[in-house]
Amino acid sequence: MKTFSSLDFDPGQLKDLIIRSAEIIEEWYSTGIRNSKIYRNFSPSDIRCLFDEPLPLDGSEPEKLIEKIRTDVFSTSNFNPSPNYYGYITGGGNHASIIAELLKTSLNQNNLKWHSAPANSEIEKIVIKWICQFINYPDNAGGVLVSGGSFANFLNLAVMRKVKCPEDISNEGLYGATRITVYVSEQAHSSIDKAMDMLGLGKKYLRKIPTDNNLRMNTKILEKKIQEDKQSGFMPACIIGIAGTTNNGAVDPLKRLGDIAAENNMWYMVDGAYGLPAAGTETYKQLFEGFEMADSLLINPHKWFFVPFEASCILVKNKKLLRDTFSLVPEYLQGGQEEKDRDDLMNYNLQLTKDFKALKIWMTFKTYGAEKLKKAIENDCMLARYAGDLVEKSSDFELLAPIPLSIVCFRYIGEKGKFSGDEKKLDEINEKILDGIEKDGRIFFAGTKINGKTSLRINLTNHRRTKEDIDYLFKVLREIVSRIMDY
Amino acid sequence: MKTFSSLDFDPGQLKDLIIRSAEIIEEWYSTGIRNSKIYRNFSPSDIRCLFDEPLPLDGSEPEKLIEKIRTDVFSTSNFNPSPNYYGYITGGGNHASIIAELLKTSLNQNNLKWHSAPANSEIEKIVIKWICQFINYPDNAGGVLVSGGSFANFLNLAVMRKVKCPEDISNEGLYGATRITVYVSEQAHSSIDKAMDMLGLGKKYLRKIPTDNNLRMNTKILEKKIQEDKQSGFMPACIIGIAGTTNNGAVDPLKRLGDIAAENNMWYMVDGAYGLPAAGTETYKQLFEGFEMADSLLINPHKWFFVPFEASCILVKNKKLLRDTFSLVPEYLQGGQEEKDRDDLMNYNLQLTKDFKALKIWMTFKTYGAEKLKKAIENDCMLARYAGDLVEKSSDFELLAPIPLSIVCFRYIGEKGKFSGDEKKLDEINEKILDGIEKDGRIFFAGTKINGKTSLRINLTNHRRTKEDIDYLFKVLREIVSRIMDY
Repeated sequence: MKTFSSLDFDPGQLKDLIIRSAEIIEEWYSTGIRNSKIYRNFSPSDIRCLFDEPLPLDGSEPEKLIEKIRTDVFSTSNFNPSPNYYGYITGGGNHASIIAELLKTSLNQNNLKWHSAPANSEIEKIVIKWICQFINYPDNAGGVLVSGGSFANFLNLAVMRKVKCPEDISNEGLYGATRITVYVSEQAHSSIDKAMDMLGLGKKYLRKIPTDNNLRMNTKILEKKIQEDKQSGFMPACIIGIAGTTNNGAVDPLKRLGDIAAENNMWYMVDGAYGLPAAGTETYKQLFEGFEMADSLLINPHKWFFVPFEASCILVKNKKLLRDTFSLVPEYLQGGQEEKDRDDLMNYNLQLTKDFKALKIWMTFKTYGAEKLKKAIENDCMLARYAGDLVEKSSDFELLAPIPLSIVCFRYIGEKGKFSGDEKKLDEINEKILDGIEKDGRIFFAGTKINGKTSLRINLTNHRRTKEDIDYLFKVLREIVSRIMDY
Repeated sequence: MKTFSSLDFDPGQLKDLIIRSAEIIEEWYSTGIRNSKIYRNFSPSDIRCLFDEPLPLDGSEPEKLIEKIRTDVFSTSNFNPSPNYYGYITGGGNHASIIAELLKTSLNQNNLKWHSAPANSEIEKIVIKWICQFINYPDNAGGVLVSGGSFANFLNLAVMRKVKCPEDISNEGLYGATRITVYVSEQAHSSIDKAMDMLGLGKKYLRKIPTDNNLRMNTKILEKKIQEDKQSGFMPACIIGIAGTTNNGAVDPLKRLGDIAAENNMWYMVDGAYGLPAAGTETYKQLFEGFEMADSLLINPHKWFFVPFEASCILVKNKKLLRDTFSLVPEYLQGGQEEKDRDDLMNYNLQLTKDFKALKIWMTFKTYGAEKLKKAIENDCMLARYAGDLVEKSSDFELLAPIPLSIVCFRYIGEKGKFSGDEKKLDEINEKILDGIEKDGRIFFAGTKINGKTSLRINLTNHRRTKEDIDYLFKVLREIVSRIMDY
């Protein structure tokens, strides 16, 4: 067997390399979190120069590779654990999960079948129950952990399609099926369009319902549209309520939507990818009233449970419907003693292979406890309100949307609001500011448009943030603005 | 801001916890790899007892939680890094990737947009190019890293659907569309059925073509079926060749399939989730001749590149077609300076959120180099052949399928083959043996059926395995058999 070639390191070497990595991680967190650029404005070709080469035929010393990650990967990454990162809604990760992920990778579990990953299979069900308990959803719901909200919305819509389509579409396809329509607010996440496309339901049958002044779905228009569609021969099948829109965190009138779904015998889905953890807090729970009527929902631990990527969760109130949608067991997956309580996770998912995502969620809930997580969520909302107050009290910025949770949409309007009224100018300046922020790199934003207006936008879903960070944000922002206005 | 509540550990504590974890990992690998049970036959309720509790409201000391993972999670997991694990086709992980995953989690990148994860976005493209170079596929192909083969098959079929369906199905749905048919061998992975269902194409339009004696697709029957379908008014749209079936590693006649696809203007897809890395070896490359004709393919680094879960890769020869299928950019994702060479990974995937899967692949290729990986692949194939020889030379076992790569399907036939011919008895005994293996726990199998016969089955995709491990396997297996026969 002359080709034998274990890839294992010598005894002790793996440990030494992990220890070296631990030093690097401490360095990243101690120096990278504040007082430093979190984004360095390299171009794609700058970065390619650092890493591009033909397929390496021979190996390299892992110590040197770790050093390269320390310097070159870190400097060309966008360090979202920093409280100065206000970009895409990102939990920023937590320390306890770093440990869990390290141990997880070493265990290398694949939970397709119960017996391929027994602890993983059971712990996933337990953390899903905890998530239900955190937000006060029935904790006997079915659920599964997946990569992110886009895939979760897809899975939830697949369950809806299975339940609501009157035909045997699994076997026959959608070719001759009844056309079903799905309703969501204009503020819906784009992944719902993508899911409609992927499922063969057609993007045009996703009805985007206008919103009220608070960017919440207008239920009068919804009801009218449902009736119109019925009269046109479509089958209104599903209402999707949003529990925290991506643009400004708006929470749809979830109880009213649940009632309308019930009245019309429709599936009720809630996209709570970002906002739903706040339903577990005393301060914000009333905002989500009625979400528990949902037949299915989605919530992303990698957002407001501060778990590192990837960790998203779907919940389906009637577990059997989730299983009916995805269960399909071929011969080579019939292995194992099929005891009836061995519940294979592959039966609840399009995926077969899935890693032990549950361990970092278990570690997060166990290390910090729900109360501390709730405080961190409330802290984010309070800081968003604080930032909003600073904007409202200022004469050079204005809010563009309400702040129901922890997202603030605002824009620069010139000293003493001198550009107010000139929408073209305002769009132009605020786009320049967004570019300027990225070039500066001390803070990071993701902009958007609110009612067609270019908006600066900050997402606060990071447990490391304080009032001083918000003050720093506005200090840096005004420096960037003044550079742009001077130019 | 009295609610401020960072979840960060004190300075130094994270490092200490990582170091403690490193000790545990060394312990797992030094004691768990050999000479120990890799699977302990706990019941679901046994495991639930260890972990089940209501949502924890208060936190716990992370040191104690790590200790609980060390003892309770490890003992109730199926330790697939061991060479005594022959179950689901699993690469067993490698040490270099453990480092990469630790650093990855600390960086917490989300590569939806280029500027949200610049290094990640560029490194993903580089490792995809390396994968192409490893197997000799055009390295300007488009590609994306995802969770696993099931999702990858789904994405590849979504691209095919987009390309081949004559109607605007993205917007209109499949309701009025031309019925398309897809062809794959009877040995196809079940994820292709699931993908047909999910995409609204209908499982019944997946034509399962019988195989020859070597479990490779019978191309004569394929051609006949395509003509029949054309005459029945269907549109034959796609042939899927398998480069390493799950059951026995059979590689379809890939060149012939490519020719038939070309003659009929069909999309050609190759599912190489397991086997395709062997196309990069001198010894096995001729087996895969013609795979490079594929319009799209899939290959799983978490199988035969020995990368830990999750890491799967799709490749689409014409990158634009991949992008056309998935690109959809809403307002709140238009952030960032849209330089034309900033290539957002979200445009190549149904997923938006995705973690830095590329780092462990980069680390694997860089640490070991392609030549060492090829040797490890060839070692697996040689050991499979060695195991096959032991079976063939024995009087108590027989092979049930050829061994083109590194999967061996065989069964017990009684001392001196005394049960030969009694298929019912053979099925019964071999099912008992599979149960017995699981109860014993020193080795781990996943069985299957070959031509309706219950088969023991060993998958060899682990760089840690030696000839002595195979000898040990048969020693343990015969002990289990004798216990069962004595009973």
